[in-house]
Amino acid sequence: MRWLGETQVEEGVGERAFEVDVGLRRVPGVLWLPAGAAGGSSPGPRPLVLLGHGATLHKRIDHILALARLLAREHGFAVAATDAPGHGDRRSAGVDDEVQLFGVFLAEWSRSGSTDDLIEEWKAVVAELRALDEVGDGPLGYWGLSMGTIYGIPFAAHEPRVQAAVFGLMGLMGPTRARMQADAEAMACPVLFIVQWDDQLVARDAALDLFDTLGSVDKRLHAHPGQHAAVPAEELAASVAFLARHLA
Amino acid sequence: MRWLGETQVEEGVGERAFEVDVGLRRVPGVLWLPAGAAGGSSPGPRPLVLLGHGATLHKRIDHILALARLLAREHGFAVAATDAPGHGDRRSAGVDDEVQLFGVFLAEWSRSGSTDDLIEEWKAVVAELRALDEVGDGPLGYWGLSMGTIYGIPFAAHEPRVQAAVFGLMGLMGPTRARMQADAEAMACPVLFIVQWDDQLVARDAALDLFDTLGSVDKRLHAHPGQHAAVPAEELAASVAFLARHLA
Repeated sequence: MRWLGETQVEEGVGERAFEVDVGLRRVPGVLWLPAGAAGGSSPGPRPLVLLGHGATLHKRIDHILALARLLAREHGFAVAATDAPGHGDRRSAGVDDEVQLFGVFLAEWSRSGSTDDLIEEWKAVVAELRALDEVGDGPLGYWGLSMGTIYGIPFAAHEPRVQAAVFGLMGLMGPTRARMQADAEAMACPVLFIVQWDDQLVARDAALDLFDTLGSVDKRLHAHPGQHAAVPAEELAASVAFLARHLA
Repeated sequence: MRWLGETQVEEGVGERAFEVDVGLRRVPGVLWLPAGAAGGSSPGPRPLVLLGHGATLHKRIDHILALARLLAREHGFAVAATDAPGHGDRRSAGVDDEVQLFGVFLAEWSRSGSTDDLIEEWKAVVAELRALDEVGDGPLGYWGLSMGTIYGIPFAAHEPRVQAAVFGLMGLMGPTRARMQADAEAMACPVLFIVQWDDQLVARDAALDLFDTLGSVDKRLHAHPGQHAAVPAEELAASVAFLARHLA
């Protein structure tokens, strides 16, 4: 694990970029901590939340940054996000608009092994972060919608340290449907599942089927009108409250 | 409006029983206020929330009492509930078990005019309460699941003072289906709609159709696993937070 630059403190939260090598892949990430903890004055263990971004987005997109700052500042959590393959700092040269990035996502989703690769990256990043004094070996949470759910469900289902997860904007569909179904059935931790009622990318029935399939006894579905990307701020607040309740 | 007995203070909340005559009907109700306000030391106007109980239940059933106390103590609201026709203190002699009460509910639901009658009662009660110094003419909220939604949707849709409403455990179904649909379409205030995912009394599709039909731009659906009566405490807390956000 290599640090890239110094800790930047904003709104009471320290933010620092890092890279982790996983096989031949260089995975860029960001760690957020309460400002005091980032200075080493408040050692862990503390809860760690991994945030998985959606297709075409990246590790510091607005809502990821907002969630990270709320969780770190209001609840003292450590929070991390990485760029998924082909996204953010891992974009190929010349891939710079949303349509191209969506193509990259679809190709990767269709590639056998994409799920295992991303799980390997996230596990490596979590292991590196846990070794830090200011993070330590506390409970683990996961938050990821859309592509963040496609890969987040297999990750959370087989990572027993995940004690609470937020999923949504996805359904039982697509090239990894069979695996998503099996992993959703295996899910055991409390889940908040977010649905956009007029999602133009995910059929409502497929989304409800995925919620239905989740094996967790403790699960809840929150739905709002609007298209895929129109998740209201209310659900960021609900996500933070849900993760805090189960991890703090 | 007649008061029945003195104000009883418990958990920082004053509770007082009353009766209002509506036509030939005697409607028994309860008013909850913050303990100080009940003594007249804190005049209104303050938000008023009307709680509509479910079939076979009554105005002081556990979750109604819990909601009333939270809204009054934590947010300083006035809260009121009445017994619906045939329920609580309005039960006929010899009607004393749940099966009989459910029969009373079904007969009333099937009776033309039942919706208009209950709306008339609620409007009369709200008017009487608003005339009290300690309640006054503040914003109005409504909370009612199951039977409380059957009658609550027509009430809230045509009572412009209702600024936020919680509905649920009901679908587009039953003898008043056509009216429920028209009134749901006319709804304009923010709504929280609660669904039990394994509701044995309300088909899931009928519940989702009712949510879909609600005309409110600002609406959200919260669903949990479990049967009709298994709404978790989490949704009482969500109801209180939702009503407080829109009425305070």
